[in-house]
Amino acid sequence: MFVSKALGVNEENHLTIGGMDCVELAKEYGTPLYVFDENEIRGNMRIYADNLKKHYGDNGLILYASKAFCCKKMYKIAKEEGLGIDVVSGGELYTAVSSGFPTEKIYFHGNNKTKDELILALNSGVGRIVVDNSFELNMLNDLAGEMGKKADILFRIKPGVDAHTHDFIKTGQIDSKFGVALENGEATEIIEEATKLSNVNLVGFHCHIGSQIFDLEPFLSTAEVMMGFIKEVKEKFGITISELNLGGGFGVRYVESDDPISYDKYMEAVSRKIHELSKKHNLPLPKILMEPGRSIVASAGITLYTVGNIKEIKDVRTYLSVDGGMGDNPRYILYNAEYDFEIANKAGDKKSETVTVAGKCCESGDLLGENVPLQKAQPGDILAVLTTGAYNYSMASNYNRIPKPAAIFVKDGTSKVVIKRETYADIMKNDA
Amino acid sequence: MFVSKALGVNEENHLTIGGMDCVELAKEYGTPLYVFDENEIRGNMRIYADNLKKHYGDNGLILYASKAFCCKKMYKIAKEEGLGIDVVSGGELYTAVSSGFPTEKIYFHGNNKTKDELILALNSGVGRIVVDNSFELNMLNDLAGEMGKKADILFRIKPGVDAHTHDFIKTGQIDSKFGVALENGEATEIIEEATKLSNVNLVGFHCHIGSQIFDLEPFLSTAEVMMGFIKEVKEKFGITISELNLGGGFGVRYVESDDPISYDKYMEAVSRKIHELSKKHNLPLPKILMEPGRSIVASAGITLYTVGNIKEIKDVRTYLSVDGGMGDNPRYILYNAEYDFEIANKAGDKKSETVTVAGKCCESGDLLGENVPLQKAQPGDILAVLTTGAYNYSMASNYNRIPKPAAIFVKDGTSKVVIKRETYADIMKNDA
Repeated sequence: MFVSKALGVNEENHLTIGGMDCVELAKEYGTPLYVFDENEIRGNMRIYADNLKKHYGDNGLILYASKAFCCKKMYKIAKEEGLGIDVVSGGELYTAVSSGFPTEKIYFHGNNKTKDELILALNSGVGRIVVDNSFELNMLNDLAGEMGKKADILFRIKPGVDAHTHDFIKTGQIDSKFGVALENGEATEIIEEATKLSNVNLVGFHCHIGSQIFDLEPFLSTAEVMMGFIKEVKEKFGITISELNLGGGFGVRYVESDDPISYDKYMEAVSRKIHELSKKHNLPLPKILMEPGRSIVASAGITLYTVGNIKEIKDVRTYLSVDGGMGDNPRYILYNAEYDFEIANKAGDKKSETVTVAGKCCESGDLLGENVPLQKAQPGDILAVLTTGAYNYSMASNYNRIPKPAAIFVKDGTSKVVIKRETYADIMKNDA
Repeated sequence: MFVSKALGVNEENHLTIGGMDCVELAKEYGTPLYVFDENEIRGNMRIYADNLKKHYGDNGLILYASKAFCCKKMYKIAKEEGLGIDVVSGGELYTAVSSGFPTEKIYFHGNNKTKDELILALNSGVGRIVVDNSFELNMLNDLAGEMGKKADILFRIKPGVDAHTHDFIKTGQIDSKFGVALENGEATEIIEEATKLSNVNLVGFHCHIGSQIFDLEPFLSTAEVMMGFIKEVKEKFGITISELNLGGGFGVRYVESDDPISYDKYMEAVSRKIHELSKKHNLPLPKILMEPGRSIVASAGITLYTVGNIKEIKDVRTYLSVDGGMGDNPRYILYNAEYDFEIANKAGDKKSETVTVAGKCCESGDLLGENVPLQKAQPGDILAVLTTGAYNYSMASNYNRIPKPAAIFVKDGTSKVVIKRETYADIMKNDA
């Protein structure tokens, strides 16, 4: 019935998440409110980790891509589940370190890491730095030298694979700000450069072909391209690449018509492919890394709002306004992202209405969905937007100086705050 | 030479703002950095205020639309310049009150004000509440009654004027989440409703036809429509409307090809129009309010970044990466907004290159401009993005947990911090 198996309807006709009543949660914590089902998050992590282990043995590691939803609690969960993480900035790294995450399992990404970030990474002892370009390579080598360290690195490679996805989130091709391309020789050049540097140690390659990918095929093509390149590098430079990080991009179901591949199938197919290719190219099996982010948290999260005014404009449309909007969920104004909507206190009712869900920001584009089916609503109802676990809190702004909502986790019949609600004073605290 | 008269080039070939060297400012305060010329802000405020006074006498007030850039310092300046302000949320109101702004000159907007916000507004003694809809009207009337107050209100009216502008920022028409329409009788209905309520006092109307409007004509049409409606209301209900708030939306020059109307001409033309229409309709001259936001601050602000890696991809394009991006300036990814770019330490040089300016976020769409002309750059250079004073800080996010930049004001040869740089600890402070 719902896009996420974390959701249900109880005997009071209320939406539930992780078995808990959403209307009660809204009452207890206020709205807007991000709510996550912790068991769904852990379950998603295990699908990846268990299936990678099953099909590839111990020589693989799932890295949670923390940009999808970053906070201390997420790092604690990833640690408990035995995952690694990827971080893409000093801020994410700082949060991970502050959460006690084992730094050797941290992969540090970014197309333009600053000097300060690289120093933080080296000081923290992150496991791998995924080097994006020659400028960074040299800066890192110099810094590591000054600090008496040797950095284990991966290079970010553009494999040239088209993932048939949205322009904004297509990153595997040559026209991208990320990484070095195979097809024009950039990748070979940077490896050659690395061989001459004494404070970096090339252990692997990283690639990422895009986001919200629903097919298996582009991932297999990528594995093929990358294993071919590993062979080439061995022949040309005598370097044995021991790690292959295949990135993320696994699609999730936002609305019913979305039909993502099942993640266990992906783990199986990729594992088999790498085995085949290792044999074919006479290469040792590389350590495989994968970076799911969205597919770990999206389905585990919903956002609860209180319905305010409902504006029925005859022959035009009905605007239903909520007490949040583009500040806490900018994905509609950014990408025209689609969501399912439910009136949490009428969750089992038929969706008899068609409404446009508007936020409270002073901006016409501040909508969460247009002409979406919904139960008959009235002011004071609790509106749930589903599948908001990824890239909602993480992209949230304080536009109009509206505080960011709290985030809570539910688990086994209990709930707790993992990110406190922002206050007006919080927003103003840096004003001089 | 530049899109803003706040900018220049000094003898060291460096970009200046308010006469101060941008390269020195970057060195002193770090990057990314929002820099504002305080005199430009005050000058823009005075163009509106002085010309409204000149052409309309003392019966007008300019309200700074604080959503464009809200912080304590802006409210202090608006207060010193004798302006009123409009606020669109509890957070903006809280900041204004905390800044000592005279509350009677505050107009409170919003399509979906919450109960808590209305209580805050009533308790603060804001001058006017701009009521959006019937639901809000009744909630306000009830709250004011409970608190023993009478609220002076304006109604937000959709005048039905098409401002020929971007879909996202077109708000004067019937298909909008804001206000009540004239053309289908909603406006008349809500006035009738108000006449029956005892804790609200209808003093005026507000309308806003859109943003980044470059013509005079839609503003004059709006004045005509609204004055006609004021006449109708007088005839029908015997109510004399004493305030007409014509909103904002005055276009600004982002790039050289933008050709906005000059604000003094607008003040003159609108003042004349209202005089004519008052005479024609035999109405007393209403108090006129106008709400410039973008046109007060946009041209006064720039953002300084440090150039990181520069990726020349042969036959594709050149990506120049900076140490900020969509986090501090989401207007490119949101609206494909155009900007002028300068290498601040080579500001007088010819723009011999064409580059794509990329941010450091882990998102392909994180660009600030594509294929823009720029001086020949190298890592470590300071890149200035011009006309970023409006809707940059105010829409900023912590995507990737990147801290928000500091904002500084320069004035008469001195500089000072008005918003402190966010720290990693700030971002993490609400993590439980």
